[in-house]
Amino acid sequence: MGSVNMPLATPLFAITMGCPVGIGPEIIVRYFAENDPEDPPLVVVGDMAVLRRAAEVCGLSPDFVSWQPGDALKDKTVPVLPISHLNPESLVWGQANAATGQAAASYITAAVRLIEERVFAAMITAPISKKALHDAGYPYPGHTEMLAALTKTPHTHMMLAGDSLKVMLVTIHCPLKEVAAQLNRDKIFACINACNTTLRDDFALVKPRLAVAALNPHAGEDGLFGDEEERLILPAIVQARAAGIDVHGPLPPDTVFHSAANGQYDAVICMYHDQGLIPFKLLHFKDGVNVTCGLPIVRTSVDHGTAYDIAGSGQASHDSLAAAIAMAGAIAQNRRDKHRRASP
Amino acid sequence: MGSVNMPLATPLFAITMGCPVGIGPEIIVRYFAENDPEDPPLVVVGDMAVLRRAAEVCGLSPDFVSWQPGDALKDKTVPVLPISHLNPESLVWGQANAATGQAAASYITAAVRLIEERVFAAMITAPISKKALHDAGYPYPGHTEMLAALTKTPHTHMMLAGDSLKVMLVTIHCPLKEVAAQLNRDKIFACINACNTTLRDDFALVKPRLAVAALNPHAGEDGLFGDEEERLILPAIVQARAAGIDVHGPLPPDTVFHSAANGQYDAVICMYHDQGLIPFKLLHFKDGVNVTCGLPIVRTSVDHGTAYDIAGSGQASHDSLAAAIAMAGAIAQNRRDKHRRASP
Repeated sequence: MGSVNMPLATPLFAITMGCPVGIGPEIIVRYFAENDPEDPPLVVVGDMAVLRRAAEVCGLSPDFVSWQPGDALKDKTVPVLPISHLNPESLVWGQANAATGQAAASYITAAVRLIEERVFAAMITAPISKKALHDAGYPYPGHTEMLAALTKTPHTHMMLAGDSLKVMLVTIHCPLKEVAAQLNRDKIFACINACNTTLRDDFALVKPRLAVAALNPHAGEDGLFGDEEERLILPAIVQARAAGIDVHGPLPPDTVFHSAANGQYDAVICMYHDQGLIPFKLLHFKDGVNVTCGLPIVRTSVDHGTAYDIAGSGQASHDSLAAAIAMAGAIAQNRRDKHRRASP
Repeated sequence: MGSVNMPLATPLFAITMGCPVGIGPEIIVRYFAENDPEDPPLVVVGDMAVLRRAAEVCGLSPDFVSWQPGDALKDKTVPVLPISHLNPESLVWGQANAATGQAAASYITAAVRLIEERVFAAMITAPISKKALHDAGYPYPGHTEMLAALTKTPHTHMMLAGDSLKVMLVTIHCPLKEVAAQLNRDKIFACINACNTTLRDDFALVKPRLAVAALNPHAGEDGLFGDEEERLILPAIVQARAAGIDVHGPLPPDTVFHSAANGQYDAVICMYHDQGLIPFKLLHFKDGVNVTCGLPIVRTSVDHGTAYDIAGSGQASHDSLAAAIAMAGAIAQNRRDKHRRASP
């Protein structure tokens, strides 16, 4: 489950533009307006005309320049690797279709290829429409699965990371009533192990302290409200402890996040989507980052969607994008340091 | 489902001492050491020797006085209505048994009787051991069910209340995998209605704004991850709106608590225990209050348990007790005001 560390030749990062009619283009333009684009050095993988259109709704007029691999970055410009060439007049904010889905997919494919060619050191992804991706003929449930397929990675895990709280999910997009049936010891162990590897390699924690949330209220109260704690979660924890991981639980879900946010644990392994997302979004509504663990490449993402209800209004906040960029930078640095330490 | 309003003759409040070997006695003693016992006027319904023992471990020596209905309160004393007379030498911190369970039950029974006789205006309960209650022959799942039986109340609802967030639970102590099967439109509607009544009558909100959390991630994402939103929750909301309640949803669980904590909603109706308790305890770990809605009497409770692991150490915080006392005072006052307004 560990991350494969590739030596990274250059610390140039790619931002994929995401859905052309969502808030992705806007938050990218806003980010560049307020940040130094050379720290870390960034290139937008997207569509020049779409970015210009987004700049307009934000009341901004940045200096977009077309960039190709090998080009140097120019001061006070927004470098764009143009992958699609959509006609802005064909676009309606919030209305994705097969053409926008195809465009969004092409940014991802290009960024992955250029990371594998060591042009980019990491990618930060803006949100896409899963439906438009499907309409364009990419049958992936989402970004993460597409990245896993492109990099031939069998197992990935989703971590939501912020300064106060980090959570990793054992099950993700699953109806609540099916969560219990979806759990097994192997999945829980794999998630604990991936979380430990990520915190150690990508977040440079020497000995991560992990907590595992129980599935049931009061951690099942000795079997009174469910037996998955005893049957599935505890055996996975025992296995992980035997493997040398500092992991605790299963802990009552209603208090474990308070303990973690107060520094007792570095991350919490969660059994289902909302168990992790509810506390995470309460603490990191604006600055949360989605980190895909297990990929050979470094990928972080904003933790919000395309927000079609506000796309084109110029209101969207770029806080999560800024946090995702900063975190990709830190992860890439930590992987480089680890690689240097490991090399003679 | 509405609260029955009894005219309250006096604003004297009862604190039931809870489990004699849990943290209840300690937090009561600590509360009196730091607060004016006449605002609101309080009487401990419990055991004099047990309270003295708790004062000792806290390094305190308050002036306990035996109190009986009709007695005036004396300045700078802790009035105790002695109901049990346990031998302190028979008690071990953290080790509840049938005798301590019988004692804890007798405080509750006495307080309810004296509220019905209008001696007390409200009760604030310290935590009990459910197991000791069972051992003593009281087959209730908990405090709330015992109070419902004593007051012959068919339906009660549990609200967790704090300044930033209030949540009410449709299902409570239920294994996660059974939550979906436990839900139905009537239960969800009853919970919305009870929440509205409580906020209006007990918290004096003229037109409460309620949110209903969905069951599934992303509120089911149009049926992709579950259909309970469409089948059960939405019909209950439609019914409640038709009854004039300002209620919204079903809303994605991972963002609704952020909206509520930021003032968009006065309370969130939650489908299961941890959906409500995880965000609530993150925001109100120390000062959360458990309010039982639907009872003819006013009852608030600390939102923590007996904490046997620290009982007798003098470490327990009385913040939740202080919040529960203040909230009982506010609720009783609001019910009195409403009663006055309703009387010609």
